[in-house]
Amino acid sequence: MRTLSLIGIGTGNPEHMTVQGINALNRADVILIPRKGEAKEDLADLRRVICERFLENRQTRIVEFDLPVRDAANPSYRRGVDDWHMAIARAYADLLAAHTGETGRAAFLVWGDPSLYDSTLRIIEHMRRETALAVALEVVPGITSIQALAASHRMPVNTIGGSVLITTGRRLKAEGFPPNADTLLVMLDGDCAFRTLDADAYEIYWGAYLGTAEELLISGLLGEVMEQIVETRARAREDKGWIMDTYLLRVRG
Amino acid sequence: MRTLSLIGIGTGNPEHMTVQGINALNRADVILIPRKGEAKEDLADLRRVICERFLENRQTRIVEFDLPVRDAANPSYRRGVDDWHMAIARAYADLLAAHTGETGRAAFLVWGDPSLYDSTLRIIEHMRRETALAVALEVVPGITSIQALAASHRMPVNTIGGSVLITTGRRLKAEGFPPNADTLLVMLDGDCAFRTLDADAYEIYWGAYLGTAEELLISGLLGEVMEQIVETRARAREDKGWIMDTYLLRVRG
Ligand SMILES: C[S@@+](CC[C@H](N)C(=O)[O-])C[C@H]1O[C@@H](n2cnc3c(N)ncnc32)[C@H](O)[C@@H]1O
Ligand SMILES: C[S@@+](CC[C@H](N)C(=O)[O-])C[C@H]1O[C@@H](n2cnc3c(N)ncnc32)[C@H](O)[C@@H]1O
Repeated sequence: MRTLSLIGIGTGNPEHMTVQGINALNRADVILIPRKGEAKEDLADLRRVICERFLENRQTRIVEFDLPVRDAANPSYRRGVDDWHMAIARAYADLLAAHTGETGRAAFLVWGDPSLYDSTLRIIEHMRRETALAVALEVVPGITSIQALAASHRMPVNTIGGSVLITTGRRLKAEGFPPNADTLLVMLDGDCAFRTLDADAYEIYWGAYLGTAEELLISGLLGEVMEQIVETRARAREDKGWIMDTYLLRVRG
Repeated sequence: MRTLSLIGIGTGNPEHMTVQGINALNRADVILIPRKGEAKEDLADLRRVICERFLENRQTRIVEFDLPVRDAANPSYRRGVDDWHMAIARAYADLLAAHTGETGRAAFLVWGDPSLYDSTLRIIEHMRRETALAVALEVVPGITSIQALAASHRMPVNTIGGSVLITTGRRLKAEGFPPNADTLLVMLDGDCAFRTLDADAYEIYWGAYLGTAEELLISGLLGEVMEQIVETRARAREDKGWIMDTYLLRVRG
């Protein structure tokens, strides 16, 4: 059967690559790299850097492809995303059929870890359900932005015996700081949802462009560093054209 | 100044090692490996396998040391652990002073990722506070058992836009399945706390010895696979003398 490897590549530092990931890369007949759909060209570039640095199998081909674009005009957001994912699923099936033989191996390079806030696994489920293409799936874990954040701040994620809630900016805004966790990890927050919290009650450990040469780190009492984070974030985003940031919130100890 | 690297080594598969971790290993003057204190000799072995496979710097020395043992007779559990951690902190300071010069580099190999349910970072904080030894700290992220679990089950950790609670077996038993998360990741559960939940309401994705050749995986409706997990776990634990397992629980979809 065909095999498709989803290889977690870490979050910006090519040296986040694992030996397992490098070996999966070199076992592939074809590596499929999306050209568009990621506004952030820097991010697509990391995939090319990784191939240049770690791919030694001269047989392996690199195929760049254009991802279908989401129809922002669709009146239902949810429907729009579903249709879009189906279109990507069909594009994946076509790519696999075109570039791998019936026992061939293809690989996708997935940002961070494939299991964390990433749609690739779900799109492949669509693909397997909706198309006739038979394909075995292999997932190679990768360093997540959470681990990159904790490593750069040189801190534990959990308190002793404590639990940790991983959540999104949207949820933090809607639900506040939950009573049953003393540590929150917030991802996908385009809106600085930490501003809605009681500034005296929490510590924040913030990081942007983690793992890259442009990494930014700020930490402290929420009330004392909140404005600095908001301003640093806005400035960096304007300079670079995009930002990826994540943060840990902890009940003030 | 002296530097101490905490290198996350992943959870059983030597190929979880990142390029960053391999480079940190080879930059070290000395790699410090605990001989005892880990009942599980297999686990100490992984560290030796990693050094054999990835250490190419002939200058780097490997020093095995005995960890202080916790005084189980201490009437206060909490005090016992604190005293024990202080004893380890002093042992670390002595090791660093004995085996690295004032600008030398030492490395510890930490199971999984150093930020997740691991005491090394906290013990080093003790060491820096309580001893005169000046040491810069470097943390290299590693693949956690959570990512190994998700990769082996080839599944996303979060639902779309959902949050994820990482917790311990003890907390799951005490607090039940929390209302504000649809996904739970349970670690450090020696007691199969999932047995205390409504067996019809959840799906479970369980894994033991993740990343190793002995990896075990079971998944399904909690009510349908619960007994199988309890039995498989007991048998494996008896055969090997130890077990490490973790699982994901999800509200039945
Ligand atoms: C679509 S999710 C992908 C997460 C990824 N799969 C992982 O394992 O980290 C994107 C979110 O991850 C976080 N993120 C990813 N890379 C990051 C980086 N280098 N620095 C800071 N945050 C990052 C941000 O919160 C961003 O909104
Ligand atoms: C002291 S914690 C260390 C966690 C580690 N730092 C990590 O990043 O995964 C030990 C717990 O991690 C989980 N664990 C670690 N390695 C594992 C493995 N190979 N398979 C299954 N569970 C594992 C188990 O829940 C175990 O009780």
